[in-house]
Order: sequence, then structure tokens, then C-alpha cells
Amino acid sequence: MKLLLKIRYDGTSYCGYQAQPDKPSVQRALTDAVSDCFGFPCTVTGCSRTDSGVHALGFCAAVEPVDPQNRITIPTGRVHRALRRFLPADISVCGEAEVSGDFHPRYSVLRKEYLYRMYDTVYDDPFESSRAWHLKHPVTDEGLTRMNRAAAHMVGHHDFTSFMAAGSKIVDAHRTVYSLNVQRNGNNLDLRVSADGFLYNMVRIITGTLTDCAYGVFEPDDIADIIQAKDRAKAGKTAPPHGLYLSEVWYDREIEWKIF
Amino acid sequence: MKLLLKIRYDGTSYCGYQAQPDKPSVQRALTDAVSDCFGFPCTVTGCSRTDSGVHALGFCAAVEPVDPQNRITIPTGRVHRALRRFLPADISVCGEAEVSGDFHPRYSVLRKEYLYRMYDTVYDDPFESSRAWHLKHPVTDEGLTRMNRAAAHMVGHHDFTSFMAAGSKIVDAHRTVYSLNVQRNGNNLDLRVSADGFLYNMVRIITGTLTDCAYGVFEPDDIADIIQAKDRAKAGKTAPPHGLYLSEVWYDREIEWKIF
Repeated sequence: MKLLLKIRYDGTSYCGYQAQPDKPSVQRALTDAVSDCFGFPCTVTGCSRTDSGVHALGFCAAVEPVDPQNRITIPTGRVHRALRRFLPADISVCGEAEVSGDFHPRYSVLRKEYLYRMYDTVYDDPFESSRAWHLKHPVTDEGLTRMNRAAAHMVGHHDFTSFMAAGSKIVDAHRTVYSLNVQRNGNNLDLRVSADGFLYNMVRIITGTLTDCAYGVFEPDDIADIIQAKDRAKAGKTAPPHGLYLSEVWYDREIEWKIF
Repeated sequence: MKLLLKIRYDGTSYCGYQAQPDKPSVQRALTDAVSDCFGFPCTVTGCSRTDSGVHALGFCAAVEPVDPQNRITIPTGRVHRALRRFLPADISVCGEAEVSGDFHPRYSVLRKEYLYRMYDTVYDDPFESSRAWHLKHPVTDEGLTRMNRAAAHMVGHHDFTSFMAAGSKIVDAHRTVYSLNVQRNGNNLDLRVSADGFLYNMVRIITGTLTDCAYGVFEPDDIADIIQAKDRAKAGKTAPPHGLYLSEVWYDREIEWKIF
């Protein structure tokens, strides 16, 4: 049995999820916290890498003792409380489950969802500065409609080479996008996209391209040609990392989450 | 003519609005920014003091050159853009107006509104930790109803001595509360209160007392007796500063805001 944690983090102060030498990472902070809390060294394996500044609302990470002789004795469902004083304020546990030994938090993923948050007030918003991308030109209702018309072209099974960071070493860039839409919530524009997998920078390039559609740089129907081209240069700019949130992960089996 | 700025700030890194020697204050940051931007020393006068960690969504501050020979030549409505590169990311200008020489941003106030934000998930939320008070016990629908029934007793003209920090040197603690209510927005509980003036810690003591009503420490109808007692010890605890936002200020004259 392994312990699976669902965590939320504000990624502003981290080099990303993945541990890197001499840089603060979420993985490092989490590994230190569980090891200190349980009293023996543990390994922590995440569901995904995230870039520097990227946030998470439902990141999944599996925790195991390094020495199999050690056992986690805190009952599942109580770990978040025990961990509270070991975790920094920008990371917290919002769900716990037990999973079997063959479960892998990355390889068992069936589907993931990201949120990309923007805001479009003319003024800079100090409460959004590290948590949403500031679009300096307001998005009109028509612009939002254009974004969603463009988004519809991306849903389905496609080769997303045009929406992958140039220089990525992925051989097969086919992915299935299950859903993609943009909604306005007050001054926020929330893009939500779910897929069976994501290429490097895929959500950020999709977001940049959809905002170009909002402002008339592209027509919504251009998206079909951009996908067809399989050329990163044809798509729009890469949106910055600080608006991106890994929001949900679905697995190839039922997980009995204790959610708080 | 004076320049009146409406500002938003995340108060987490400041000792409060008011300048204090050797401490970072919003007033100091704002004074430095306008002086650097305009090219001559300016004074900045705020509508209110705020405590360390308290935020603002619509704080008003008047800007004047120290030497009356100097004149602000940037047209009103363009100042927020000019100031952008002089202000730290946690302070921004979201409105501008011209006001007459006799206008005082504090003495001309007729009414102010505060927002006090709470959240009640069982887990700590890293996105709320410095911006809302974490109620560790969820507030039920009945608890919310109790809070609003209690709140209704506070609306009107009362002596609010029971809701003033002990040791305050205010002679007359009569204030008129125009509106006070608590609404749920997802995991947030937002208390909004407007009044002709506020005593020291008044919103935070009101908030602490209303949460006590939610959990059954007080009955909603106890509020009448608590007000009557004119004794700080009869009211509930003081909620922490980091959930408090000065949200709006109304003046004794029409202000022609250029709002963005």
C-alpha cells in the first residue's frame, strides 16, 4: 500500500514541482515534510512536472518509506492534519487515499485538467499579479465568443506539434483534448482544458493562441490550418507560467479519496 | 486642485498604510513612487489608517507637490500608467480624480465599507493563507443564518464600545452601521459592513463575535445585550488582520472618478 496525497500549492516561490539541486522545489518541500512528520526518510513521486511559477489545485503525489521496514502509522484521512506544521504556508494537503503497490502517480494517469487564469482590468491587480496573466486589453463578449469558437477546433484527437515548445524531443505529438473552453468570472477569464496528456508548454501555447483569436490576430477558423501545419511558428505566443494551475487528475482505477 | 488616487494593495508585506520609521508602509511606497514619477517631492494623504497585514480594494489617497510651484503635468486618467513602473507589484492605482484644494481624503469621508473574508475548508488553502481568515470548523447554512440574524442587531446608530479595542482613547463610540451581512461564495464567507466611521478593531471584533454566533458560543439575540454592556470583554474575539480589506469610501461630494 502507498499513501496518495492530493495537494494544492502556490508555485510562485518554487522552481517547479520537480526537485533540482540548490533550488526550492515542491517535491523537496513535500519530501522533507513527510519525512520529518513520519520520522523516517520517504520518497515522493508526483503525477507531473510543473514549471517554475505554475500552481496546483489537485496535484497527486505518492509517498513511500525509503526503507520498506518502516510503516506509516498515521491513519489515512488524518495525515493532512499531522503534516500541517511541517509544510510551508504555500503547500497544503487537500485529499488522501490508499493505493496499491503497483499504482504509479504518473503512469496510471488517464486524463488531466489544467486551468489557465487571465484577467483583463486596465489596472494591474496586486491580488492577481502572481496568479493570473494580465491581458492589458479588455476581452469583449465577441472576443470571448471567438476564443471559444477557436477552442472548438482543438477538441478531439490531433497532432499538436504546433502547440508544443520548439525543440521538444517528443516523437508522437498526438493527444486527445476532451474539453476546452473559456469562461468569464468577473474580471477573470478562466480557460479549462482536459486531455489524455499534454506536450511541453501545450496549455500555455493554446492560451496565447486563443487570446490572439480574441483580439483578431487570428480568425477562429485559422486553428484548423495551424494544427495541420505541425509547425510551432504558426501558433500564437506562449502565455506566462504564473496563470497556469494543474487542477485535476483522473486515474485508470477508482481512487477512494478522503476529501476535506 | 489635488490628485486623488484610488488604490488596491496586498498589505501582507507592509506595517500598514501609515508611514513608520524603518518599516515598509504603503504610504512610503506610494510617496516614493509618485515623487520619482513626477520628478519632485510629493506628500500623500490617505483616507484611513490600516493595520499591518490589512488589504485594500478601494483606498483613497490625495497627492500634492510639497512645493506649490511644482505642478503635476500628467493628465488625470493617465497617472496609473505612468506610475506602473514605479510601484511595487503589491500596490496599484485603479482610479483617478481631480479634487478641489479644500478636499481632505480623511475628513471628507461620509461612509466607508470593509470586506472581511473568511474561508472554511478543513485543509489550509495556500491561495488564501494571507488573504482570508481560516475558520477550521465549517460554517453550516444554519450557522450562516445565525451570523446574519446577529448582524441585524448591529445595524443602526449604537454605542459600539463593546466592539472597540480595549484601551482606545475614543470619547464618543457612537457610530451608524448602514449595512452588515455575510454571504457565502464557494468556500469563502464574505462579511461586508458599511458605516459612517469605524472604531479601532471594530470590524475585526464584529467578525470574531459573528463567528462565535455561527458556532453557538453566543445566541444571535445576545448581540443586543453585548452592545448594551459597553464592555469589550462581553464581545467575541478579534479576528486576525489578514482577512480585512478596506473596500470602498464615499465622500461628502461627487468625485468624478476615472475608473479603469
